[in-house]
Amino acid sequence: MSHNIFGHLLRLATWGESHGPAIGCMLDGCPPGIALDGAHVQQYLDRRRPGTGRNVSPRQEPDQVRILSGVHDGHTTGTPIAMLIENVDARSADYPADAAYRPGHADRTYDEKYGRRDPRGGGRASARETAMRVAAGAVARLIIPEVRVEAEVIAIGGEEDAGRWDAMLDEARADGDSLGALVECRATGVPAGWGAPIYTKLDADLAGAMMSIPAVKGVEIGEGMNAARLRGSENADPMREGGRYDSNHAGGISGGISTGQPIVTRIAFKPTSSIRKPVASINAAGDAKEAVTRGRHDPCVGLRGAPVCEAMMALVLADHFLLHRGQCGG
Amino acid sequence: MSHNIFGHLLRLATWGESHGPAIGCMLDGCPPGIALDGAHVQQYLDRRRPGTGRNVSPRQEPDQVRILSGVHDGHTTGTPIAMLIENVDARSADYPADAAYRPGHADRTYDEKYGRRDPRGGGRASARETAMRVAAGAVARLIIPEVRVEAEVIAIGGEEDAGRWDAMLDEARADGDSLGALVECRATGVPAGWGAPIYTKLDADLAGAMMSIPAVKGVEIGEGMNAARLRGSENADPMREGGRYDSNHAGGISGGISTGQPIVTRIAFKPTSSIRKPVASINAAGDAKEAVTRGRHDPCVGLRGAPVCEAMMALVLADHFLLHRGQCGG
Amino acid sequence: MSHNIFGHLLRLATWGESHGPAIGCMLDGCPPGIALDGAHVQQYLDRRRPGTGRNVSPRQEPDQVRILSGVHDGHTTGTPIAMLIENVDARSADYPADAAYRPGHADRTYDEKYGRRDPRGGGRASARETAMRVAAGAVARLIIPEVRVEAEVIAIGGEEDAGRWDAMLDEARADGDSLGALVECRATGVPAGWGAPIYTKLDADLAGAMMSIPAVKGVEIGEGMNAARLRGSENADPMREGGRYDSNHAGGISGGISTGQPIVTRIAFKPTSSIRKPVASINAAGDAKEAVTRGRHDPCVGLRGAPVCEAMMALVLADHFLLHRGQCGG
Amino acid sequence: MSHNIFGHLLRLATWGESHGPAIGCMLDGCPPGIALDGAHVQQYLDRRRPGTGRNVSPRQEPDQVRILSGVHDGHTTGTPIAMLIENVDARSADYPADAAYRPGHADRTYDEKYGRRDPRGGGRASARETAMRVAAGAVARLIIPEVRVEAEVIAIGGEEDAGRWDAMLDEARADGDSLGALVECRATGVPAGWGAPIYTKLDADLAGAMMSIPAVKGVEIGEGMNAARLRGSENADPMREGGRYDSNHAGGISGGISTGQPIVTRIAFKPTSSIRKPVASINAAGDAKEAVTRGRHDPCVGLRGAPVCEAMMALVLADHFLLHRGQCGG
Repeated sequence: MSHNIFGHLLRLATWGESHGPAIGCMLDGCPPGIALDGAHVQQYLDRRRPGTGRNVSPRQEPDQVRILSGVHDGHTTGTPIAMLIENVDARSADYPADAAYRPGHADRTYDEKYGRRDPRGGGRASARETAMRVAAGAVARLIIPEVRVEAEVIAIGGEEDAGRWDAMLDEARADGDSLGALVECRATGVPAGWGAPIYTKLDADLAGAMMSIPAVKGVEIGEGMNAARLRGSENADPMREGGRYDSNHAGGISGGISTGQPIVTRIAFKPTSSIRKPVASINAAGDAKEAVTRGRHDPCVGLRGAPVCEAMMALVLADHFLLHRGQCGG
Repeated sequence: MSHNIFGHLLRLATWGESHGPAIGCMLDGCPPGIALDGAHVQQYLDRRRPGTGRNVSPRQEPDQVRILSGVHDGHTTGTPIAMLIENVDARSADYPADAAYRPGHADRTYDEKYGRRDPRGGGRASARETAMRVAAGAVARLIIPEVRVEAEVIAIGGEEDAGRWDAMLDEARADGDSLGALVECRATGVPAGWGAPIYTKLDADLAGAMMSIPAVKGVEIGEGMNAARLRGSENADPMREGGRYDSNHAGGISGGISTGQPIVTRIAFKPTSSIRKPVASINAAGDAKEAVTRGRHDPCVGLRGAPVCEAMMALVLADHFLLHRGQCGG
Repeated sequence: MSHNIFGHLLRLATWGESHGPAIGCMLDGCPPGIALDGAHVQQYLDRRRPGTGRNVSPRQEPDQVRILSGVHDGHTTGTPIAMLIENVDARSADYPADAAYRPGHADRTYDEKYGRRDPRGGGRASARETAMRVAAGAVARLIIPEVRVEAEVIAIGGEEDAGRWDAMLDEARADGDSLGALVECRATGVPAGWGAPIYTKLDADLAGAMMSIPAVKGVEIGEGMNAARLRGSENADPMREGGRYDSNHAGGISGGISTGQPIVTRIAFKPTSSIRKPVASINAAGDAKEAVTRGRHDPCVGLRGAPVCEAMMALVLADHFLLHRGQCGG
Repeated sequence: MSHNIFGHLLRLATWGESHGPAIGCMLDGCPPGIALDGAHVQQYLDRRRPGTGRNVSPRQEPDQVRILSGVHDGHTTGTPIAMLIENVDARSADYPADAAYRPGHADRTYDEKYGRRDPRGGGRASARETAMRVAAGAVARLIIPEVRVEAEVIAIGGEEDAGRWDAMLDEARADGDSLGALVECRATGVPAGWGAPIYTKLDADLAGAMMSIPAVKGVEIGEGMNAARLRGSENADPMREGGRYDSNHAGGISGGISTGQPIVTRIAFKPTSSIRKPVASINAAGDAKEAVTRGRHDPCVGLRGAPVCEAMMALVLADHFLLHRGQCGG
């Protein structure tokens, strides 16, 4: 795992900038013989893609995925699966080269690291790269068909009552502001035994995977941060004859290895950094310049985060399934 | 990174069981020419080691580290640094083979994964393995001498007032119970530019590293879980001429790359799972058997977690320093 | 490094089948700020591509490369460089699904490993995948501009006199046969100090890289196989004041680390396996069926091997430059 | 794989200098449930160790291995297996710090890379490190019990008639000189299907593994360098109904994947570089100083190379068995 490559036995390499000609990925290590076509991947991309509601970016990207390798006669062959999405609706004029650094974005840190960057639409640091995670996650699900991965937004701006979200989002949009969101991502059907000590623990890999998603600032497994407030007797998951657990404070992972219970994670997305409301900033030359984002952006990036969390969880679980089968024989 | 090996360019491989003859590690990729002796490492181990207070495990381990390779004439040579600690005070009689699975421990999941395990003292899954992380972290600090990494417990059992902790711990101990803890770990002196998109983001690596520590259930960067409750205008870190930031909601990382501000993480440790208070459980044969831990354990494992968090942060930062120097020339 | 991903800090991921819609790669970890455009890469592809002489395959592939990411304003940005070549002249009718396994090809072993494969043109196992190595190698050269990597065929069918090669190739072609070739690949300008013990030795990485090229069966460094026939006093490279070496039996690498002398490797390419001359074989069903290749193939695949050897050497050297800079500071 | 860590799923990390207190290794990813004790490992170390004949170094090292982790109740547990050998007979006085750089050794290149080194006995670059490869290889064999790996010296100083070797070695020793050797290493019992495209080809991994052994300068698979001299019709391995091959020019690997035939490699060891015969050299200060090795050394390092080749082949094959089982289910 390094740079833009993710995973152990199942490896995802992604590439592409927000306003370049295309974004793409290569998924290496997928087992052979799995039925796969573009339509399967497309359905997951369609759930994530922008332009599908008033609360997500109005950028119009059909996000039509093409599978360019690794599939023959409708089945995976064991060779790398390359997928590609053309960028269609890239309005680069929205991003002048002398723009203010957008607080909360990677504009400035990329400049500081690399000495240069593609400023158009956030370049590589755009949330657009997550489309390829979703595409790869769709394939990963097929490797572990008995596992069901589902994520949903469970709070917006700290409000858990979904009935109030539309009004809150309308208000934030009207204010030129944005809202954070909390996503819960769960997997059911994971058998006991996936994961590995010490640095490839299932929870460690999930935490790294989730934190790699743009805008994520916190990751919890099971009781999460709340575990720090509990007593041992409250946090224990008693076991009964037959193997059943009474509770799942552990979130389905103990000692870095799955327990067979649902795997439960919560992921905190910060509010979208690109807001119309002015924020004091500077430009690349170091001069003061207010950041006032006029491009197209989601008022709550977390709304589109749920499918990405699902994808990362599916990738981690499929990888650990393969790792476990490799070391322990399945 | 896989199994028991951690890191990209700076790689830590650790081994050893709680009650085996020794635990050890090998740190590969350390730059040459760094002054290093056992005493430097020992001071960090001494901060972590058990038997040093009433609130930590009474197991008496001198934890004397020996450096077996990679150092000549008092300096690192660029070859692997092996370190070893003999296990001295291992009372295996405390751990009968037919014991109940201890809820919250890896007893059962190791059995489910591997079909067997070393049951003595938790075997590989014991917090004892963290000693080698601390030893390696002590070396990592020397690679980035300008960086200061410090962690402290900021809450126990949800209580932030440290003046109340002793009483709470005494009470928990008297009850045969345990308490969770919240640790804050910070790094100052990290220049802007360390980290890398997309899956080797500095925050992603930190999250994975922290979540790999036994008993950790949640990791936050900067605002952490609270970011999900904020508005974009509240969460923004304005920038001023000269480059200064007005605030540090980002926790020193933006787009996966360090901003030059302090790196701030919070780590939630669950309460020690080994408690005297009986918990319903089963044994390896599947029969009901109450778990009543009589071995020596910390009433609050988080108290010993702070030095381990520091070590993991030091390892991640030193690794990213080397990665950045490799790709971008320093 | 695994499956279809190559390298340590500079990572090449390639994908694509011979007769799929396209082949491509992603080069991760390239330093920022390097001037790069498609024309630079194209010149190296043009040297390798088929259809350019009577002794190479008549398949007409323009091999026009497109750079899809990682370059902005004519310079690398530090993000992944994706490159893609459309497959144009794929005549899949040449490859019926019930064809005989071609001896010397991966037809049968892919079936045995994966249970299925893309049979068109050798699928993933086609030498066509080497085009992306050449493209990536062209970029790698720019990372180490002071290094000059050059390969040439030094023998065909055991004959070192190049004046006889055309007649030999004509004869082999007339016979429906093919010839092996020996390639020498050298790098000059590599400073002393690149490489690393023990398993990332520069020669170990070069050997692995060269042996991964289709049709390669032997790799030599310096004296190579001949070293086994020498005495220590014959094989020694004496050193003189000022640091000069009298000879270079070592081939520029000692203890896995570059000496500053030219790095010299020799690579043995077996004769093209696809020949018109019938060879006893079987098909996927296990029935006897003579293999008589009628597709378009090179009479001496080694002739096109030289640019691929150069590419692999450039990739390994650029990677080790980055590794060395990372660990030792340049 | 990097620096001093080898392998994909089965990872070997080794450490230790020739004259340090000990050498050791950690083997990560070994499956659980394999019967293992120190005696099994010791028998392989005994075959390799010095001091056992007039033609190998008279250094007296009992090479008693201790298994420090990863084994419980006589079986592997799936956790890292650490092994350690104390260095006993290290005569550091043989290696003054101002010694001439020994031509053919890594003395100078280590200095050039790292700016310093442990000069005692070659430090990390000593062939002594191969003891841990042999120890790990002994474990690897147990992962693939159906596979038999055997290596033997097939030529010394170019002479294939073993009856003449003793006289040649006596003569070389009398001259203060040394001889190269050719080793053939074979594996039988490997089923078809191990290996993986493109950069993890079984032959690519074997070539890298063999070339990482000290003193190796050439690696051949099957026909090896000779393949460059053959015609396609000569090099083809015809197949017969039932799947049998008529010949094994391929050396048991086609397209990077095992064919089910014996895997055949040949490895060229250069003559021992440490010879009593004077060779012009310089010291670390750059002054001319003849290299006259007076320490204890093997007149033909290749004689001890065979067990190391076996170990590396066993490690590569066991790793590929696990990789194949992981991706393809066994």
